[in-house]
Amino acid sequence: MARTEDLRKIATRLRIHSLRATTVAGSGHPTTCLSAADLAACLFFREMRWNPKDPNDPANDEFVLSKGHAAPLLWAVYAEAGVIPVKNLLDLRKITSELEGHPTPRMPWVKAATGSLGQGLSVGVGMACAQRLDQSPARTFVLMGDGELAEGQVWEAANAAAYAKLRNLIAIVDVNRLGQSDPTMHQHDMAALARKFRSFGWNTVAVDGHRIASILAAFKKAGRGGKPTAILARTLKGKGVSFIENKNGWHGKPLKADELARALEELGCLPDIDARRFIHKPKPFRKRKRVVAPGLPRTPYTEKTATRLAYGNALLALGRVDPSVVVIDGDVKNSTYADKFFEAFPGRSFQGFIAEQNMIGMGIGFAAKGYVPFIATFAAFLTRAHDQIRMAAYSSSNIKVCGSHVGVSIGEDGPSQMGLEDLAMFRAIPGAAVLYPSDAVSAEACVEAMAAHRGLAYIRTTRPATAILYPANESFAVGGSKVLRKGEGDAVTVIAAGITVHEALKAHESLKKEGFGLRVIDAYSVEPLDAKTIAREVAGTGGRAIVVEDHFAGGGLGDAVAQALAGKASLAHLCIRELPRSGKPDELLRKYGISADHIVRAARELVAG
Amino acid sequence: MARTEDLRKIATRLRIHSLRATTVAGSGHPTTCLSAADLAACLFFREMRWNPKDPNDPANDEFVLSKGHAAPLLWAVYAEAGVIPVKNLLDLRKITSELEGHPTPRMPWVKAATGSLGQGLSVGVGMACAQRLDQSPARTFVLMGDGELAEGQVWEAANAAAYAKLRNLIAIVDVNRLGQSDPTMHQHDMAALARKFRSFGWNTVAVDGHRIASILAAFKKAGRGGKPTAILARTLKGKGVSFIENKNGWHGKPLKADELARALEELGCLPDIDARRFIHKPKPFRKRKRVVAPGLPRTPYTEKTATRLAYGNALLALGRVDPSVVVIDGDVKNSTYADKFFEAFPGRSFQGFIAEQNMIGMGIGFAAKGYVPFIATFAAFLTRAHDQIRMAAYSSSNIKVCGSHVGVSIGEDGPSQMGLEDLAMFRAIPGAAVLYPSDAVSAEACVEAMAAHRGLAYIRTTRPATAILYPANESFAVGGSKVLRKGEGDAVTVIAAGITVHEALKAHESLKKEGFGLRVIDAYSVEPLDAKTIAREVAGTGGRAIVVEDHFAGGGLGDAVAQALAGKASLAHLCIRELPRSGKPDELLRKYGISADHIVRAARELVAG
Repeated sequence: MARTEDLRKIATRLRIHSLRATTVAGSGHPTTCLSAADLAACLFFREMRWNPKDPNDPANDEFVLSKGHAAPLLWAVYAEAGVIPVKNLLDLRKITSELEGHPTPRMPWVKAATGSLGQGLSVGVGMACAQRLDQSPARTFVLMGDGELAEGQVWEAANAAAYAKLRNLIAIVDVNRLGQSDPTMHQHDMAALARKFRSFGWNTVAVDGHRIASILAAFKKAGRGGKPTAILARTLKGKGVSFIENKNGWHGKPLKADELARALEELGCLPDIDARRFIHKPKPFRKRKRVVAPGLPRTPYTEKTATRLAYGNALLALGRVDPSVVVIDGDVKNSTYADKFFEAFPGRSFQGFIAEQNMIGMGIGFAAKGYVPFIATFAAFLTRAHDQIRMAAYSSSNIKVCGSHVGVSIGEDGPSQMGLEDLAMFRAIPGAAVLYPSDAVSAEACVEAMAAHRGLAYIRTTRPATAILYPANESFAVGGSKVLRKGEGDAVTVIAAGITVHEALKAHESLKKEGFGLRVIDAYSVEPLDAKTIAREVAGTGGRAIVVEDHFAGGGLGDAVAQALAGKASLAHLCIRELPRSGKPDELLRKYGISADHIVRAARELVAG
Repeated sequence: MARTEDLRKIATRLRIHSLRATTVAGSGHPTTCLSAADLAACLFFREMRWNPKDPNDPANDEFVLSKGHAAPLLWAVYAEAGVIPVKNLLDLRKITSELEGHPTPRMPWVKAATGSLGQGLSVGVGMACAQRLDQSPARTFVLMGDGELAEGQVWEAANAAAYAKLRNLIAIVDVNRLGQSDPTMHQHDMAALARKFRSFGWNTVAVDGHRIASILAAFKKAGRGGKPTAILARTLKGKGVSFIENKNGWHGKPLKADELARALEELGCLPDIDARRFIHKPKPFRKRKRVVAPGLPRTPYTEKTATRLAYGNALLALGRVDPSVVVIDGDVKNSTYADKFFEAFPGRSFQGFIAEQNMIGMGIGFAAKGYVPFIATFAAFLTRAHDQIRMAAYSSSNIKVCGSHVGVSIGEDGPSQMGLEDLAMFRAIPGAAVLYPSDAVSAEACVEAMAAHRGLAYIRTTRPATAILYPANESFAVGGSKVLRKGEGDAVTVIAAGITVHEALKAHESLKKEGFGLRVIDAYSVEPLDAKTIAREVAGTGGRAIVVEDHFAGGGLGDAVAQALAGKASLAHLCIRELPRSGKPDELLRKYGISADHIVRAARELVAG
């Protein structure tokens, strides 16, 4: 077991590695590494139980570096632990190195990308919940900065951890007093920080973050009273190097070569110690094997059904066949219909309250531990978690997101409740699957497809009930589309999704009476788009196409089709082009120009040229 | 002055109006109106000083309904105050009525749209700061729900208010215990809520929210100790109607006709009282007139300069000519270069710390009071405030947003710090101006154009220095573009913006040597796009076009151009198509396919067909 003196030596090595690596890279954040070096040494080489041979050993304590700009410190830890060669540290930030400027899972020990501050605690909440579900004795540690405590998400996560009584979650706050551009709000007022955490239901322990003995003693107090624990460590940014220590203006600044030389003189030579022998291996722990039953039984539908209700039904069915599915919902489970899952599987259901950022972060944590989280709220409110969704993508996280109540078709509740930018938000994420079913059958199939898809997947569901369009066993692959109406001599192709598929079908019927053939495609997979089928069908109607969507003009299905058909088609784009208002769904479809009548008119205009 | 009995009668009228209106509308949230009716009566007809004849009277106390789903209560208040006819209440949620399902500024007394929970307090912080800048004696009141306290943004706002010592800000929390789908986290644990607000530096007063005398007494304690005040009111959802009072399952549910009849029986008939005579008019107050000097002096540039630095210079110049400009920055002012303004105008500068959601909310508050807020952080972190930006649009708010450090061109810091989805986010907002300058001259001009633009405007700035392309006095209108290279017989047009303009110019030079004419357009106005010029120039190069942007594939300049040129051009789209990584800027431009070499190759391929 590492003694105080050993840990002090290891911390010095971490400091030297961090300084050297950032100077060689010519950029980075050395001072924030120096403030947290003693904490990191105590954590990784004394307190945590982990197997340096396997980042996915279920017995491992988990670690999240929420203050991602201290990445060089984390890389130094793994070098000292023998996980990576020490010489690799000098490749920091190179295009060839997995040691990036902020942590990403290109380095396999990183389970969640960080660098957008204030997100790590939510990931830790998800991991700690997963460990509890696994009945694992392992714990989760999150190293945070004091600057990031200004992020509201931290307090969403604090709430969630206290509510779930996560005694296996320990946050360590490196209170180094200085933000990027100014001192933090509370600077070294440790009592003020403790009051905040305590008022949110946490244990707190305040320590001198540079006294090894105090740090070790603090860890012993973790988990008392069945609560999550915040260790508030008073530190100095740049600790150990006199001319940068506790000084403003040194946030994202490496030392110059001569400054590095002076710093290394102060720190002394690299202490001679092999940190690897101090790593505490965990007791072996195996998770119960989860058996996923094949196939997903479908609900038989005959009457008009809202796709959001079908989402709820499919989630319930999925829960029955796949024990790795967990569900989080933002206090709207009776609207998204996640409540069906909540009732059947309370142990795998998590009330997210009205805290969307934390929900996504928790999902990333669950996914990192092998669960498949389905996370739902109104699509409009997912914008609240855009940054977290972005970071989920950088984490290569296998989360599934549902946005309900999309478009003006929600009706009377008004614009604040209408998801009209969600397609743009998800389409901008490389690799995300973006699905938008038009009926209950396709909605269930899309849930099945999302579960099978590796990585981020999004489903967009509609509030009002819509007619059933497909036979019960129809399959819907990610990247596919359905040609719903097609005849020889069709004059125009309509590409629609969700509620507008039904408008397009009405337009088809209406035009048919006058011998005008309107081809109709259900582009349920908005991303990836079935560009090949769409291009072929549009070519068959003389290169005339209409896109109609219950979404704002920018970034949605219209843009996707415009890209796919560039140079190949004349395109009319029917979508929401102004700030909408309250009204009845049908009135709003008409007022904003996405109704059957508007499709009919656009089709005639295209043909008239 | 209204006595307790008068206020009780008014509250009963508010309850009856709310129940009737929602039943007639067939949707809405009556129970949350009932819990807050006594609070609203005390506020509007006793505590607040306001002039019901003029929503923009600078002497008015301001009010924000953060719990926007209680809109029917707010409309009832304005009907009782004589601002709107009582009969209009029964038009609630109709497509013809300004009384929408959640408040929007279609009703002129609403200064900020609400309905996405947890945002109102930030707006109130901005308003209270503006009142202080105005040296006004007026105050700001924010009515919140207890459910929305789970939103992290509330605690960002709480921090900001305490830090600014806003004694003129009073939050009233309607603690009605029930969320939409479940009881709230703390239910009626008033002490737990008080601890949270106190730990964030607020005064708190806990009251029975249905006892008029207690409510009035609580208001008297507001502002003590120079702190913001939270009045925590214990209430019952559905108060006054036995069969819905304090019952789960009645969140967004109007009473049916027979239920309404029973409810009205319990409440008794509409009490006979004229609430209008109890409104407290404020003492007249006039703001000092702010004189805006015409024209914005430009900085002379000769050497390579980062557009973010030019943003800082322009902001400083703008601050000198326009005293209504205020600046908020999220602890990165030394990177966005907002720090120049902070140094020159500390009284109009607001350190937003690392709390992006609250920054935008504060901006909405400032704008509502006639200020022109410029709000900056890294573009990547603006995604944190997507919901707030969305609500700013619904508020028709005149906020100006700057996102710096866009694209892979930031280099070594890695993907978490790269703004690669910001164009998609802002393009999806109807009416937003989205500007992306390529050099320091155009950056300054864009800041001037943003200030002149009425409504939301966004500027995207680049980290590395770029060459100066334009003469010092060149003008850049919103909706314009610049044809930078053009020759007879040009084979292909490149449409670029920001950093890729420089790559396009390099490609032009390179191809010129072999007699290949490459037309180059700087599409600095991404939204509205100068579709006319682009279409004309592309037609002049045989309908061959390349879009090249430092942004993900979905929702950015490429999609905008694809829409503009639908059917008119063959398009190559060079953009970031995978999750990027750390590296040197030039290496990353090459690796992800948006460098001059890639433009050259794409141009040759287009010509080869």
